[in-house]
Amino acid sequence: MGPIDFWFTMGSTYTYLSVIRLPDVAKAASVSFRWRPFLGVRALTGASQLPFPDGSSKARYMWRDLERRARMYGISLTLPVPYPITNLTIANSAALLGMREGWGEQFARAAYCRWFQHGEENGGEANLRAALGECNQDFDRVMALLQDETIRRDLDAETDEARRIGLFGSPSFVVGDEIFWGDDRLEDAVSWLKYGCLRPSAHN
Amino acid sequence: MGPIDFWFTMGSTYTYLSVIRLPDVAKAASVSFRWRPFLGVRALTGASQLPFPDGSSKARYMWRDLERRARMYGISLTLPVPYPITNLTIANSAALLGMREGWGEQFARAAYCRWFQHGEENGGEANLRAALGECNQDFDRVMALLQDETIRRDLDAETDEARRIGLFGSPSFVVGDEIFWGDDRLEDAVSWLKYGCLRPSAHN
Repeated sequence: MGPIDFWFTMGSTYTYLSVIRLPDVAKAASVSFRWRPFLGVRALTGASQLPFPDGSSKARYMWRDLERRARMYGISLTLPVPYPITNLTIANSAALLGMREGWGEQFARAAYCRWFQHGEENGGEANLRAALGECNQDFDRVMALLQDETIRRDLDAETDEARRIGLFGSPSFVVGDEIFWGDDRLEDAVSWLKYGCLRPSAHN
Repeated sequence: MGPIDFWFTMGSTYTYLSVIRLPDVAKAASVSFRWRPFLGVRALTGASQLPFPDGSSKARYMWRDLERRARMYGISLTLPVPYPITNLTIANSAALLGMREGWGEQFARAAYCRWFQHGEENGGEANLRAALGECNQDFDRVMALLQDETIRRDLDAETDEARRIGLFGSPSFVVGDEIFWGDDRLEDAVSWLKYGCLRPSAHN
């Protein structure tokens, strides 16, 4: 069934959990996902502040919550990692190009693992070289394509579309008109696709 | 076991779900909760903006998400309701006084039902009269006590304590040093209290 639209930015912390979990969830539930990178949360909302301002209680909570949830899912995580990332545009442009060429999901997973397991942030050169290498993609070829205006324009168009349908954060899962925001809503999105409602059993 | 500290403000939308769910969760899991009202989210964080700015995508999402989740839990909800509420201080002072005198939980539930089922916002006179009446509390006596500086000072002290331990939203559940933010983390808090970890089974 599906697909469920999986909207995300390569600059989001909780999105790491979804990027890793999605293949297993898709298989277990027999649903498919369409991976749709956008530029970033602030590009969507116009907010001047980061979602998790450095030094704030909310940021401290996010890191601890991410750690607890990664452990629950058996996902490797070595904190601290750089945040926010410096180059959202290149990270998400590469992901979008990859989705078009067929290596995007593998790239997103590889890049996120470099970031959260080895501290090499998404969009940085070390990250891009390693992640593209894992996908058997030539670094120079991809960089040349990312210099082209086409992919940047397409990324802006996807970001505009995300804003238009009412998204404001990453990851977001969209089933028809229904938005589910956050990795912790992934099962809800699957339940909505399959049953048209949220099932209490998914929470007990 | 417990208690789990249940920190909340009477001005929060998602807190409606927790206030209604808590008795059943406590009974099913054999845990207890200590209900601790604080003044409000912006009093905690110093933010100038509401958590859900009127007209924003995030606000639209919150109302729809609240509706879906209320339905999942079988909790009545009639939207739209007034938001934000006008008088956070009186709503939370009344709740704190009630916790001290033994009628606070019943009051919080009754007040929240007036707000989310009948559109009478927490802290408004109609809401206070009805909710206090359901608790067999004399409206004039309670109002006189709320004029006193003592309860307001105590509410500020509780709000300071919530900020000190790192809270930034409502509802929040605290188990030792671990914070769980949001109604959707209630089961996680219970799991942490009982098992010292999050259990994947709580999410499948």
